[in-house]
Amino acid sequence: TNSKLPGTFTNIFSVMSQLAAEHNAINLSQGFPDYDCDPKLIEFVAGAMKGGHNQYAPMTGTPALRELVTSKVNTQYGSDYNPDTEVTITAGGTQAIFTALTACIQPGDEVIIFEPAYDAYAPIIRSLGGLVKSYEMAPPDYRIDWEMVKKLFTANTKMIILNSPHNPTGTVLQDEDIRALIKLLKNNDVLILSDEVYEHLVFDGEKHRSIALYPELKERSFITASFGKLLHATGWKTGYCLAPENLMKEFRKIHQFNVFSVNTPMQVGIANYLQDPSTYLGLADFFQQKRDFFRGLLSQTKFKMLPCKGSYFQCVTYDHFSDEPDTVIARRLITDFGVAAIPVSAFYTRNTDHSVLRFCFAKKQDTLEKSVERLMKL
Amino acid sequence: TNSKLPGTFTNIFSVMSQLAAEHNAINLSQGFPDYDCDPKLIEFVAGAMKGGHNQYAPMTGTPALRELVTSKVNTQYGSDYNPDTEVTITAGGTQAIFTALTACIQPGDEVIIFEPAYDAYAPIIRSLGGLVKSYEMAPPDYRIDWEMVKKLFTANTKMIILNSPHNPTGTVLQDEDIRALIKLLKNNDVLILSDEVYEHLVFDGEKHRSIALYPELKERSFITASFGKLLHATGWKTGYCLAPENLMKEFRKIHQFNVFSVNTPMQVGIANYLQDPSTYLGLADFFQQKRDFFRGLLSQTKFKMLPCKGSYFQCVTYDHFSDEPDTVIARRLITDFGVAAIPVSAFYTRNTDHSVLRFCFAKKQDTLEKSVERLMKL
Ligand SMILES: CSCCC(=O)C(=O)O
Ligand SMILES: CSCCC(=O)C(=O)O
Repeated sequence: TNSKLPGTFTNIFSVMSQLAAEHNAINLSQGFPDYDCDPKLIEFVAGAMKGGHNQYAPMTGTPALRELVTSKVNTQYGSDYNPDTEVTITAGGTQAIFTALTACIQPGDEVIIFEPAYDAYAPIIRSLGGLVKSYEMAPPDYRIDWEMVKKLFTANTKMIILNSPHNPTGTVLQDEDIRALIKLLKNNDVLILSDEVYEHLVFDGEKHRSIALYPELKERSFITASFGKLLHATGWKTGYCLAPENLMKEFRKIHQFNVFSVNTPMQVGIANYLQDPSTYLGLADFFQQKRDFFRGLLSQTKFKMLPCKGSYFQCVTYDHFSDEPDTVIARRLITDFGVAAIPVSAFYTRNTDHSVLRFCFAKKQDTLEKSVERLMKL
Repeated sequence: TNSKLPGTFTNIFSVMSQLAAEHNAINLSQGFPDYDCDPKLIEFVAGAMKGGHNQYAPMTGTPALRELVTSKVNTQYGSDYNPDTEVTITAGGTQAIFTALTACIQPGDEVIIFEPAYDAYAPIIRSLGGLVKSYEMAPPDYRIDWEMVKKLFTANTKMIILNSPHNPTGTVLQDEDIRALIKLLKNNDVLILSDEVYEHLVFDGEKHRSIALYPELKERSFITASFGKLLHATGWKTGYCLAPENLMKEFRKIHQFNVFSVNTPMQVGIANYLQDPSTYLGLADFFQQKRDFFRGLLSQTKFKMLPCKGSYFQCVTYDHFSDEPDTVIARRLITDFGVAAIPVSAFYTRNTDHSVLRFCFAKKQDTLEKSVERLMKL
């Protein structure tokens, strides 16, 4: 049979995590903590199972979790999402992204993305017959020139994908970026998909500018987020999508035939746990300390650090001491030094190589120390 | 924005379950148990969480669960599925179906389905630009005339979807059906999607004829299944897809960007629990007793029962006492009698109405008794 996605291969996270495991390397490639989530959270989920919450949840999510998400978001961003009609619980942030795109993109539709970008966006768009129009950002500051973005718009532009705090670069959209975006969208009905999985991870007094803050954008936006990232439990595969009712209706048409509904005990447990906002309000400080600790260590290596204002990723460059492709360097880091990172060229559809590697610092202090000890041998 | 799926509405299960809840009716509509799963199973999942299995599983599933699935299937059906390359763990049976179709169906491709059919198949196919070619089966025996099926084949036929034991009719494919199918597929490369979520639920000494039993079919088939149905925990949203390596490769291209991976503690817990096959080997007897009990009760009502050889659904007809549409009757059963069923016309793309209702008998004895007490008032 002919392949529908001939140019698509195994995602970079699986490749690097697998390679890391084979070589017994410390895995700073894929974005997940190596410490555990709160035992109280586990008790809530175990309690849900023991309490008999083991059959299908409603297709849209449990009422309690939908209520919790919308009131959390509405409180944080002053928005007015309706818990019944404007939020759906998903099997993780990726499923939310996949479903929003699938609900909207038809053959010939163009989608603007900012690269480097989470490597799922482009293949999903292509699998739908859509066209990827990428705006390439470059180190060291990965700034967006909105005049150049404007040139990517055509009559076929259907959607623009935002991601702030940004994976992999750790940049955070500024108010002036949003203002420029609002201007760009004024005379068209281009949709927005705003991937906000790292919403709580902003450092140095920066603000996370959720699309939910801007009524004129919110009305045309899907916002996706992840409980896995929020709760240090990436393996629980629970997230959500917010959108105004007319868009959410389309989202649910796909969602119901994709996963139908999402893990019930996880939903019940998470909703109970999150009643107490102190469970997540300290996240920015928690990760800022990790970032600072990791940067302190990295300054002893040959790498040059790029800025990191958010997310749990630190990018570094190495072109001052090597001209090798980032994929080659990343492989050698694993095989010869025992540390796995992501070569950021994997996040460009054209594999643009700026000699940048991404490290995840959502790790135990000890793990970060050990890995930098190894990197110092470079 | 234009709807990509203008003719698609909320699935029948959500509609009926919602209506049942609103009217405080006994819900025999959606297919899930109202008794709990084995407490030992819950302990295994809780143990997995406490043991720190809370981060991303491998994209394809945990090695232990993949190993368990393939060895279970290979033992049952004498097949030779490879645990690394020919199985992927999914977020439930529906996600497996969605992903297999998405991996294969391109605009213009035709897919043959047998109706009444699980109501996800047709909208998924259409959302991919595919065409649904339905073979309509009719009560009382819902038999397939393979000479008529043959007429549905064209140069554009890409796939045929099988489902045995069958939801909603409870029929079971016979060896002669499979022989006819093998003949039909001899000179083409049409793919098979075999939805085998009820594989263990076959009654009266019938055999489940998995596609895995037939090497000449297996090599072109996706087989999908559900741990939720196997373990009385439909809310855990865990299932799997089996396929030969070349097809599984395509499946995984979509899977990785749809859900990326599946709930880790559920995978770890289920794999540990299923080490002991006695946990599922008694399922057919367990459900046959429920079926017999329910049929005994139903014989006291005005309904006529259709045969039921598998699955956990019992269909009934009522045209000997009413000429109303099944959707009207189903609604009245909820509002006036307090029992929810599925109107089987919802399982035909043309809404063909044979005056048939589907009841789920995966319920406590007490629930079945109470609901038939109510139905006797009819
Ligand atoms: C589903 S893994 C991809 C997201 C992530 O955590 C990463 O970028 O590493
Ligand atoms: C995901 S609900 C649909 C499957 C099922 O259980 C049913 O047919 O009722």
